[in-house]
Amino acid sequence: MDKSANTQPAVHELIRKRWSPRAFDNREVEPEKLERLFEAARWSASCFNEQPWRFIVGVRGRDETYSKIFGTLAEGNKIWCRHAPVLVLLAGKKLFSRNGKPNDWYLYDLGQAAAYISVQATAEGLYVHQMAGFDARKAQTLFRVPDDYRVFTAMAIGYLGNPEILPEDLKKSESAPRERIELKNLVFAEKWGENFNWK
Amino acid sequence: MDKSANTQPAVHELIRKRWSPRAFDNREVEPEKLERLFEAARWSASCFNEQPWRFIVGVRGRDETYSKIFGTLAEGNKIWCRHAPVLVLLAGKKLFSRNGKPNDWYLYDLGQAAAYISVQATAEGLYVHQMAGFDARKAQTLFRVPDDYRVFTAMAIGYLGNPEILPEDLKKSESAPRERIELKNLVFAEKWGENFNWK
Repeated sequence: MDKSANTQPAVHELIRKRWSPRAFDNREVEPEKLERLFEAARWSASCFNEQPWRFIVGVRGRDETYSKIFGTLAEGNKIWCRHAPVLVLLAGKKLFSRNGKPNDWYLYDLGQAAAYISVQATAEGLYVHQMAGFDARKAQTLFRVPDDYRVFTAMAIGYLGNPEILPEDLKKSESAPRERIELKNLVFAEKWGENFNWK
Repeated sequence: MDKSANTQPAVHELIRKRWSPRAFDNREVEPEKLERLFEAARWSASCFNEQPWRFIVGVRGRDETYSKIFGTLAEGNKIWCRHAPVLVLLAGKKLFSRNGKPNDWYLYDLGQAAAYISVQATAEGLYVHQMAGFDARKAQTLFRVPDDYRVFTAMAIGYLGNPEILPEDLKKSESAPRERIELKNLVFAEKWGENFNWK
């Protein structure tokens, strides 16, 4: 199945090929590949180089981390996440290390790190599906995450699986084309809503 | 000058080679390259596929967008941004289109889109320097950005320039090695602070 983005000005294949599947293969993720995903996140950009990103990584069958993360997921996500061999919680550091003041950019920078994981994953032949549907407060308690960090998103990581393992409704979305707002409605010049002229 | 990350588990070169310079060359950015940067952002992942990212793009010498963005920058950023041929404001949509409720993930997803711009830029031989140091409120007014969108970050885009154009203190940081927190202090298992074992 090719879900590559139908991008007219052709972007790099690591961006074009990325999408968020629900059908994951049971196949394990090689430890060295997994490490490179987080090494990629590590080199992401951040405000004042604060690097507010932290990760709790659960590998199926290794210790209880995986099942604890799984237990925080929304029921709708449990349905398909059970096949993913790796589950991750992403947490952001709310205060600047340099002065203890609130870092307004910590979630923005956590998002950048997550995006770099997705790019490196694509380079490794892996897929990532990020989730907001989980009990972040429960995760915060379960893993004794300090108050100055906020567990914010979760992600499933693995190889692409057969959509046939999914229930009917999810199977359909798995093969649906990826849709996006037109570029002209995203990029402005002069004032808000005014189209940017690419020529 | 090679500022490639000193990454032990070698990550993809689009991530390894990226850094945030201050010395930009005066050389224009080809319009087709510029377009691909935002096309890359367009295919980023977002919560419920909301795509909360919007961009105001200023190309030097084209219209007043560039000078208006430049006028919002902090003095410390104006010093080096004057050489960059493209300046961009990044804005996020605060409410979900689907139900009008607050989208808690809009800044996280805006960060993901910014990260994709940086990846595509690296593929094009371009560099990006993101900034928090600008008057977001002024930008909001100048460009008549609606209340349900928030101008959040700015970025300079261009080719790498000669560090000699920079004042002494900035010249030094231009050639300094890139530093990051060790991976073992970013990735945990079992509970917070417990090292993840990559083997």
